[in-house]
Amino acid sequence: MELQVLYIIAIVAEAMTAALAAGRRDMDWVGVAMLGCVTALGGGSTRDILLGHYPLSWVAHPSYLLITSGAALLTVFLAGFIHHLRRVFLFLDAVGLVVFTVIGCKVALGLGLPPLIVIVSGMITGCIGGVLRDILCADVPLLFRSELYASVSVVTGGLYVGGLALGLDATAVMVAALVCGLALRLAALKFRWNMPTFHYTRDWH
Amino acid sequence: MELQVLYIIAIVAEAMTAALAAGRRDMDWVGVAMLGCVTALGGGSTRDILLGHYPLSWVAHPSYLLITSGAALLTVFLAGFIHHLRRVFLFLDAVGLVVFTVIGCKVALGLGLPPLIVIVSGMITGCIGGVLRDILCADVPLLFRSELYASVSVVTGGLYVGGLALGLDATAVMVAALVCGLALRLAALKFRWNMPTFHYTRDWH
Amino acid sequence: MELQVLYIIAIVAEAMTAALAAGRRDMDWVGVAMLGCVTALGGGSTRDILLGHYPLSWVAHPSYLLITSGAALLTVFLAGFIHHLRRVFLFLDAVGLVVFTVIGCKVALGLGLPPLIVIVSGMITGCIGGVLRDILCADVPLLFRSELYASVSVVTGGLYVGGLALGLDATAVMVAALVCGLALRLAALKFRWNMPTFHYTRDWH
Repeated sequence: MELQVLYIIAIVAEAMTAALAAGRRDMDWVGVAMLGCVTALGGGSTRDILLGHYPLSWVAHPSYLLITSGAALLTVFLAGFIHHLRRVFLFLDAVGLVVFTVIGCKVALGLGLPPLIVIVSGMITGCIGGVLRDILCADVPLLFRSELYASVSVVTGGLYVGGLALGLDATAVMVAALVCGLALRLAALKFRWNMPTFHYTRDWH
Repeated sequence: MELQVLYIIAIVAEAMTAALAAGRRDMDWVGVAMLGCVTALGGGSTRDILLGHYPLSWVAHPSYLLITSGAALLTVFLAGFIHHLRRVFLFLDAVGLVVFTVIGCKVALGLGLPPLIVIVSGMITGCIGGVLRDILCADVPLLFRSELYASVSVVTGGLYVGGLALGLDATAVMVAALVCGLALRLAALKFRWNMPTFHYTRDWH
Repeated sequence: MELQVLYIIAIVAEAMTAALAAGRRDMDWVGVAMLGCVTALGGGSTRDILLGHYPLSWVAHPSYLLITSGAALLTVFLAGFIHHLRRVFLFLDAVGLVVFTVIGCKVALGLGLPPLIVIVSGMITGCIGGVLRDILCADVPLLFRSELYASVSVVTGGLYVGGLALGLDATAVMVAALVCGLALRLAALKFRWNMPTFHYTRDWH
């Protein structure tokens, strides 16, 4: 139940930050609403399509479309105000990352998939929404260049899967994975931890 | 039956305008043919994947692939001539938008989905082909910035779903939704109606 | 069995060339690993999603994810050395193209699909991985502008399907299709054969 509440908070936060990205590209209101939905719900949808897990969450719960498009449109009017809350939004985005990850792991576990696929399912759920947002904005996905984002998802999923494999209490494992993942992401943001990057400049053609 | 005829006309028109977009990017003939297929058939395919509705239309009817790639390749030779017909093509594109939308609504209704998902299914069918075209051309999707395109699809789908919900004659409702949607799109093109856009320039990073 | 060995060689080669593309975009190690997986496994995954053929290969064989992400990460350290092997990699990429194509044809044949869809299934399997790589790098897909890449896939698939339709020995047909496709691709690279391109500069808007 608490996970469900955190999920709703997370999709609202993701939709609102996506709306700001849409505003940077001068999109119209329809574009703002659609980018909000795709960013907030696209990770889970991609996971479900890859795993053949139907119906998709927003088909089963159409209200998710109203919540995310509504949150994105609200952002158009609150943009100036939201700017003052950017620390709150960075925090909520981190909450979303770990919550989406754990939900993605649970879906794959429910399908009886092996541990590596469970962790990948969590990472896809946590990260692909932002990748879709960046593709639709014609950017190189930020995920591939930013502070431990996907790594946090892998760590969170690994703790969750590992804890369950050890036979620990399911709720305690979930809370521990969420808290550790969140702490890692916030530390990465604060101290600007980054994965090493790979520079390659030669062209074969 | 008439809807089927309109569908064939629409996928031909979409494939031909996609071919011109390919030509603006100096694609080769293979790229022209593929972009034509993806643009004309990608909206319906995306809908079917999201709703788990198999087989996809072009798998069940491979001739659609021949029709759309053939129309795209023909455009290479007729490009100079087509330029004089651009008003015809803008009209056919508008026909395609509303026809795709109604077909998408019918598919979702056939799956017993709720009204909001039926309207979204129509919008995906009508609009996503153009989004895929723009992504493959590495552009920010035009959909997110242009004259009431997605809005026309939502209005068309809303009229169709609403009319059926009122128990009106199915054919009459379909024709009314198609005509109203088409009129709205043509008016938006003529009078350059646009959705308001959202400008946001601050960067959080 | 030999096809399976060639498949593993091919996904390793695709992952390593994808890693170099990631390096040209200054991606971090996570981005390198993910781009490697998506490029090597994305064509087959796209085919399986379009045809409704579940589970996807990497869900059934999670080791493919370890092989491709490992190969991509190894490339970070071997990049200078790999540059000297670029002819080997262009050869392995061509091997991958024809091997992926034949595997894609086999999957569609196993689903009882008609010949045109079998050839398209082969082309999707052979080519879409590279398209996804280019989209994630925010480039116009190279496929649409390069040396007979998709055409080689169509020829390979056509020979395979045609040979089987003539009732010839399945293994002989497969080897012939692989060899002819490989020869055509290598000749296209050596002699810089290209499809004619389509230039169109007028804008309708």
